[in-house]
Amino acid sequence: MGNTTYLELDTTRPLDIILLGRIAIDFNPAYSDEVKEEFKPLKKVHYFEKFVGGSPANIAVGVSRHGMKAGFFAKVSDDAFGDFVTEYFDGEGIDTSHVTRCTGGEKLGLTFTEMRSSTESSILMYRNCIADLQLSVDDIDEDYIRTAKALLISGTSLCESPSREAAIKAAMLARKCGTKLIFDIDYRAYNCKNPDEISIYYAMIAKEADIIMGSREEFDLTERLIRSGMTDEESAAYWQGYHAKIVVIKHGMQGSTAYTAEGEKFSIKPFPVSARKGFGGGDGYAAGFLYGLYQGWNLQDCLEFGSAEASMMVRSNNCSDDLPGPGEVREFIEAEKKEFGEMVGRI
Amino acid sequence: MGNTTYLELDTTRPLDIILLGRIAIDFNPAYSDEVKEEFKPLKKVHYFEKFVGGSPANIAVGVSRHGMKAGFFAKVSDDAFGDFVTEYFDGEGIDTSHVTRCTGGEKLGLTFTEMRSSTESSILMYRNCIADLQLSVDDIDEDYIRTAKALLISGTSLCESPSREAAIKAAMLARKCGTKLIFDIDYRAYNCKNPDEISIYYAMIAKEADIIMGSREEFDLTERLIRSGMTDEESAAYWQGYHAKIVVIKHGMQGSTAYTAEGEKFSIKPFPVSARKGFGGGDGYAAGFLYGLYQGWNLQDCLEFGSAEASMMVRSNNCSDDLPGPGEVREFIEAEKKEFGEMVGRI
Amino acid sequence: MGNTTYLELDTTRPLDIILLGRIAIDFNPAYSDEVKEEFKPLKKVHYFEKFVGGSPANIAVGVSRHGMKAGFFAKVSDDAFGDFVTEYFDGEGIDTSHVTRCTGGEKLGLTFTEMRSSTESSILMYRNCIADLQLSVDDIDEDYIRTAKALLISGTSLCESPSREAAIKAAMLARKCGTKLIFDIDYRAYNCKNPDEISIYYAMIAKEADIIMGSREEFDLTERLIRSGMTDEESAAYWQGYHAKIVVIKHGMQGSTAYTAEGEKFSIKPFPVSARKGFGGGDGYAAGFLYGLYQGWNLQDCLEFGSAEASMMVRSNNCSDDLPGPGEVREFIEAEKKEFGEMVGRI
Amino acid sequence: MGNTTYLELDTTRPLDIILLGRIAIDFNPAYSDEVKEEFKPLKKVHYFEKFVGGSPANIAVGVSRHGMKAGFFAKVSDDAFGDFVTEYFDGEGIDTSHVTRCTGGEKLGLTFTEMRSSTESSILMYRNCIADLQLSVDDIDEDYIRTAKALLISGTSLCESPSREAAIKAAMLARKCGTKLIFDIDYRAYNCKNPDEISIYYAMIAKEADIIMGSREEFDLTERLIRSGMTDEESAAYWQGYHAKIVVIKHGMQGSTAYTAEGEKFSIKPFPVSARKGFGGGDGYAAGFLYGLYQGWNLQDCLEFGSAEASMMVRSNNCSDDLPGPGEVREFIEAEKKEFGEMVGRI
Repeated sequence: MGNTTYLELDTTRPLDIILLGRIAIDFNPAYSDEVKEEFKPLKKVHYFEKFVGGSPANIAVGVSRHGMKAGFFAKVSDDAFGDFVTEYFDGEGIDTSHVTRCTGGEKLGLTFTEMRSSTESSILMYRNCIADLQLSVDDIDEDYIRTAKALLISGTSLCESPSREAAIKAAMLARKCGTKLIFDIDYRAYNCKNPDEISIYYAMIAKEADIIMGSREEFDLTERLIRSGMTDEESAAYWQGYHAKIVVIKHGMQGSTAYTAEGEKFSIKPFPVSARKGFGGGDGYAAGFLYGLYQGWNLQDCLEFGSAEASMMVRSNNCSDDLPGPGEVREFIEAEKKEFGEMVGRI
Repeated sequence: MGNTTYLELDTTRPLDIILLGRIAIDFNPAYSDEVKEEFKPLKKVHYFEKFVGGSPANIAVGVSRHGMKAGFFAKVSDDAFGDFVTEYFDGEGIDTSHVTRCTGGEKLGLTFTEMRSSTESSILMYRNCIADLQLSVDDIDEDYIRTAKALLISGTSLCESPSREAAIKAAMLARKCGTKLIFDIDYRAYNCKNPDEISIYYAMIAKEADIIMGSREEFDLTERLIRSGMTDEESAAYWQGYHAKIVVIKHGMQGSTAYTAEGEKFSIKPFPVSARKGFGGGDGYAAGFLYGLYQGWNLQDCLEFGSAEASMMVRSNNCSDDLPGPGEVREFIEAEKKEFGEMVGRI
Repeated sequence: MGNTTYLELDTTRPLDIILLGRIAIDFNPAYSDEVKEEFKPLKKVHYFEKFVGGSPANIAVGVSRHGMKAGFFAKVSDDAFGDFVTEYFDGEGIDTSHVTRCTGGEKLGLTFTEMRSSTESSILMYRNCIADLQLSVDDIDEDYIRTAKALLISGTSLCESPSREAAIKAAMLARKCGTKLIFDIDYRAYNCKNPDEISIYYAMIAKEADIIMGSREEFDLTERLIRSGMTDEESAAYWQGYHAKIVVIKHGMQGSTAYTAEGEKFSIKPFPVSARKGFGGGDGYAAGFLYGLYQGWNLQDCLEFGSAEASMMVRSNNCSDDLPGPGEVREFIEAEKKEFGEMVGRI
Repeated sequence: MGNTTYLELDTTRPLDIILLGRIAIDFNPAYSDEVKEEFKPLKKVHYFEKFVGGSPANIAVGVSRHGMKAGFFAKVSDDAFGDFVTEYFDGEGIDTSHVTRCTGGEKLGLTFTEMRSSTESSILMYRNCIADLQLSVDDIDEDYIRTAKALLISGTSLCESPSREAAIKAAMLARKCGTKLIFDIDYRAYNCKNPDEISIYYAMIAKEADIIMGSREEFDLTERLIRSGMTDEESAAYWQGYHAKIVVIKHGMQGSTAYTAEGEKFSIKPFPVSARKGFGGGDGYAAGFLYGLYQGWNLQDCLEFGSAEASMMVRSNNCSDDLPGPGEVREFIEAEKKEFGEMVGRI
């Protein structure tokens, strides 16, 4: 993988990216050739399909399918589900040398997805005493961080100790080692005790990050104890006053914008598709965007690629198995442009 | 429901039995007309079917299908899965007035079943910070206990506070109210901290119980701090020295024996079937046995009925949906006797 | 030590009694020749004196000063205060082979005594994460129990795990080993979560005990889930229906009564003294009463001796250092009888 | 109070300083006219004197006795000891509007001091489930912070949640409100789980601080995940790269040095006194140094004043009652210079 014009990566390092955060399992209502659970309340669903899940896990799979070499800091359960996700990662070519097993009987996080209609979906999470939040400072290996061009921290890792301190330590060591830090805010309400804690810990990582990605709501939560009510431009400028080179702020269906430290801004909006669920888009977005960035593309093209991959995921019944390779994304973009015009996605 | 010759039930009470313990969900590898997951390791299973589970929950369903009126003391999750199990109970005619919701975000216990062959099955449990163990002394309603002929306590409720104290309080109040106490030892390794705790708490309930049911291993665990190495006869006599009228001790495929306070003993062995899994037999056994007892049958017939229902469950892919009505059990017994001889089951 | 007419002790056993419960430190307002803190609110006290404290610790010291050989099951802190109490016990001739150190940094319980007037005293307790409640089932040694004539369990040990299970295990093993069980109810509000738990756990030990000692209020708490509002006679009869041979019920300044399994009853009331504080009387009472019992005295004399020792302690500024030898108690009784008449104490 | 030449304080604000951290009680071996416990092991001490303690509490008392107006963010116990410290603060003129009571039964921290010789002293701490660490984000009042010229955070507040987040929130709000931030590293081993956590949380506050004070060892702990083995000059420069204007690094008896953002350095060494204990010097140092700074003195004079106050405290039997007023410090300096020469203290 080459270099970007926005971020100087150390191309001599073997790993393109290490991700830090949760690996979980999604149980989605079955929707396949064999058995189809149509839109209905979760309590009435009888058949489920099992998939690898968890936002950073999905991003790891996504970038790997684009040919990038990924590693991972995670704790998984010491049971058949831990075997499942680890072997799945191995199969995708993700380095699992730093994916280790819990020793206290903690189980893998589970997400049961409810799909009531194409616009109403929700999730039922198993997140108590959960494996991923057991990642500890002792799992964070400075030498490993030094072998990677970048480290991506998923915000949910900050919700509870000991994972919280593991993530902060990793961020401090990334800065020490010249490993670029990518912060995917990825806020989820469960496990977070109060809004002050979110601002405290999310701001701490954001201050160290080279790239920050999140929704407007997530930036608001992060900035709560610093200054409320910042515009996108003010947020971008604030974090670029620390270490941020690229700040990506998302507004859902209204599209998203990337702000560079040089003062440029680039925007994109979603490609039109028929949605199966409201989840998984962000993971596809991150995977596609990072792939473009590592290719040395200009930011506008990175955004288009990410947005396309996002749209491909929301129409799928899962968040990991259907992550595409670069050729499929290109075909999708081509088809969409043929149907909706060359400027579909551009704002 | 009438009375038994072994145990004087107060027939004026509207509820036949209140059960106390866990209500959970089983996720079993799909095995239906639409999709069949053949025997394989759990990590390789893709499709799952969802069923109500948990030993006392299954017994409640089982006795209800035999026409008995059951109630339940339980805490369930305040989410779609809590809705599912509560509505399922309602549908079976089980009184759910004392099945209440957790307020601390605890989730329903989950059991993922692994079926590797007809003789190898195992389970992966989600039992950390779990709903059923949140049952507390404040949930135990003396007036409700007074409306029931009997209270069945499932041993797993003794594994952790606050459920532990809730179960003990219920047992003390049962004795105070003249409600017969049935102790289904139902020991499971998870949630239990050390062997001393098992003996301490299981012996405490066993000393108050009118009926005790368990495997030889479970009796050994219960008697560990009292006297090690008792024979079945010694165990039965020991507990009959307290309040036990009937002591049922099981030896797996070798069959089981019921000992009465009057000094009689009756034995039964399993009916021959092709097993799908190693679970669920005990719940069918309890449901059938208790049904017979409430009918006023002699113990030999109770055991045969329970054993038949147990065999019907181990050949099924689930532990709740396939629980039979009395007619089905009778048909099963008849068919088995036709095939294997009148004395099948008798030892 | 000889035998009693009420309780058959195994006189071949080397230890007279093992106590199980807390060893703590009392910090009392200084009141000595050097410095006197007169009655005042605790916040205004500047000088404190340090003493060994904790009800069972005081009883151990008390019986040892009467020549009995005592042992102890306890966990103490691994610090200078743990050294202090252990060396104090050694100095009194108490066997400290089963007084062990905490490994988790738990500290010794502290009691700061407030003495506002001769009738108003209160205590400020340090009981969070405390050493004595760390006693665990692994600390309970069956062979040690077998070397003792009796085991005394102090009720506060039942308030929290793991001490709770340690105490229950010790009681079960005492019954198994033919070691007499003495239950000093000794209820204290701190550490106890709710009234149901008190009744659950206190009743459990009371059912196994040969001697039960407590105030009317303590018996009420113990019997709460069994039958409310029992009279002293009913309470005594209820517990004698299990294993109790002697039941002692106290009514403060109104005196106390001992009920025997043979149907006798004996009463005593306090000796008149000028009180320094409201604490420590019960410990002196227990030490004196048990001494008399082991001497084979009739119960009336045991009670008188205990009551005298109680009165000696409430006029003292501490609960351990001033515990008397038998000669001093006899002198006290003689002096009191000379001043108040032969029948002082008798009801 | 006026302004400093090193740090621009907002002189319109009514409070000179708010301190955040622990208020505790010291129990020191009595050493007064009435009763003297000579040097001896703690376990052998019988008489204790009770004093307000805790490093930030002592500093608050110290600056108040110099005429500064102090406030405090703290949680204290809801008992007689909580009354004692709050009333003591009131008596010293410290604003206690933000000193609130614990609601979960947590007790005030206790420190029992052992004084074995003039050079050997140690402490036995009660710090489990302790009041001061219950300070929470909800206790941190932005409006209150806005009324103060400066906020001093004591490092021990960072050891555990929820106090940890309360301290970080206060630091973030201080920066938001233009309130100067003083970080007294004040590391104590108890309550801290591992060295990584110390570096993570101490560095987080140090990055925001205008003044940082600590020993060389404390700076090493803080810098552990950033760069190991920095010299004093490197440490000062590193933190001045963030917001620090003054960095004070202490080397025990070798003296201490203050580094300014302008590149100046000033050193001082202790005044010769006969020590009663090894504690309390740092609190006197901070109180005296801050007083000088607020007076607008040059740093060399601030250091001398602080060092003198430190020496006065180590020869005292307590850490709060004997904190001097400015006149007493000046007299002490004069007397020391008369005895040891004008340059005593200067390096």
